[in-house]
Amino acid sequence: MLFTEKLTARTRAVDSMLCVGLDPDFKRIPEHLKNDEDPVWSFCRAIVDAVAPFVCAFKPQIAYFAAMGAEKTLERVIAYIREKHPDIPVILDAKRGDIGSTARMYAREAFKRYQADAVTVSPYMGYDTIVPYLEYPDKGVIILCRTSNPGGADIEELVCDGETIYERIARLAAGPWNTTGQIGLVVGATQPAEIARVRKIAPSLPLLVPGIGAQGGDVNAAVAAGLDAAGAGMIINSSRAVIFAAPDETFAEAAAAAARATRDAIRAARVRALAGQD
Amino acid sequence: MLFTEKLTARTRAVDSMLCVGLDPDFKRIPEHLKNDEDPVWSFCRAIVDAVAPFVCAFKPQIAYFAAMGAEKTLERVIAYIREKHPDIPVILDAKRGDIGSTARMYAREAFKRYQADAVTVSPYMGYDTIVPYLEYPDKGVIILCRTSNPGGADIEELVCDGETIYERIARLAAGPWNTTGQIGLVVGATQPAEIARVRKIAPSLPLLVPGIGAQGGDVNAAVAAGLDAAGAGMIINSSRAVIFAAPDETFAEAAAAAARATRDAIRAARVRALAGQD
Repeated sequence: MLFTEKLTARTRAVDSMLCVGLDPDFKRIPEHLKNDEDPVWSFCRAIVDAVAPFVCAFKPQIAYFAAMGAEKTLERVIAYIREKHPDIPVILDAKRGDIGSTARMYAREAFKRYQADAVTVSPYMGYDTIVPYLEYPDKGVIILCRTSNPGGADIEELVCDGETIYERIARLAAGPWNTTGQIGLVVGATQPAEIARVRKIAPSLPLLVPGIGAQGGDVNAAVAAGLDAAGAGMIINSSRAVIFAAPDETFAEAAAAAARATRDAIRAARVRALAGQD
Repeated sequence: MLFTEKLTARTRAVDSMLCVGLDPDFKRIPEHLKNDEDPVWSFCRAIVDAVAPFVCAFKPQIAYFAAMGAEKTLERVIAYIREKHPDIPVILDAKRGDIGSTARMYAREAFKRYQADAVTVSPYMGYDTIVPYLEYPDKGVIILCRTSNPGGADIEELVCDGETIYERIARLAAGPWNTTGQIGLVVGATQPAEIARVRKIAPSLPLLVPGIGAQGGDVNAAVAAGLDAAGAGMIINSSRAVIFAAPDETFAEAAAAAARATRDAIRAARVRALAGQD
């Protein structure tokens, strides 16, 4: 099944554009789990089951697993999602950027080893860095465009030939690069004006929008700026504000409540935005 | 010990600017090793010992290990280099690019878990992506600047405010970003004119130069363009042309011969370039 089809079907089925990011910072995992055989696994499994009803996607962040040498746990978490929640696409947040045979290895890592439905990639080295992922025609390739951090402006907002770097990335990603139709873009929620620019340039690409929650982005502004013509097309990510909603035995129910509330805020923002468009 | 000090000391001690890249593509590992308990380990250890006399650095490419789920082997390879060849710096080629707590996890992965002396990073998301690595003041941070692939021009060669993106990266890396003095730049050997531009902008930064050997870059042109005022400052990488010099039982001695020949070609290019400068 194509990544975009799986994403659209799930978004519709549960009426949610919320993606929950799995960033299992060991220091913040509840103490009572730390005697388990694999605390990261216990934590992630509980979070996944608790928030699943409210999400259109999961986004595990590979850095948290890699820092601990917990790649086997990441394999296990994704396999668990695929088995227990097969309708929910998994976006591996890896921001890989390399070329040729090396990039093919990273594509294999994401799609064969981890069985992700999509992966995030960095475009600094150009189209060559995207091609190896496009060799998996059903998989999503979500390219960094305008990120949510202040330093994002250092490169992404530079103007060349009348357009910013991030606008150029959006144009290339929506046009010549999108040979599979499975490309998406990362656009930070802290930059609603930039989300609107990207949506204009790339009317039908899925936008992965980090930066609500812990990073403080405004849900209403982001959703109003980023909806596509069908009133969808956004994957709005929250990580720490959901998964670390409570530091104790109540962590899973607190995560579920936070996910539900965030989903509801996104739903309400969508209704408002669609009403405003009429 | 500072990365730059370790690199300079090693470069002088063996009169070599050759770095050997460890890209253990499983398909290309000699057949007779494939019944070993850990063929990638057997291969890498033999290559490391064979080429060590001729190199200023090793550059393991993490993608090859990650695609196979062989992170433990990568840990073992780097630990082996640190134990048996402690004077040779290890550059982890990871091209990571992320921000905040996620980037701190990648820094931990490179410097704590793998014990690398330096890591390659991507600058697309700006200075925020570099800062977490600079929190390890003795470690090298080698930033993508002008890469050796044709698509590198898609972003890196765009002109903004009268300078290309790669020139801007070189200027920032040589200036405000270099708070530790341990920053280096990746500049592909296939672009000698760009190497010369970068050397002018960043007179004293170490340049990691991939693209000789399998990628076809000209050693003489690259060395002439990239030497610093002391006639050094380059880390010239060859991976596949050295480590897969022979496909059979002779692989280690063939790798040693290829490394020696490449070191000699770089030495000769340096002598020529320094003579030309007089």
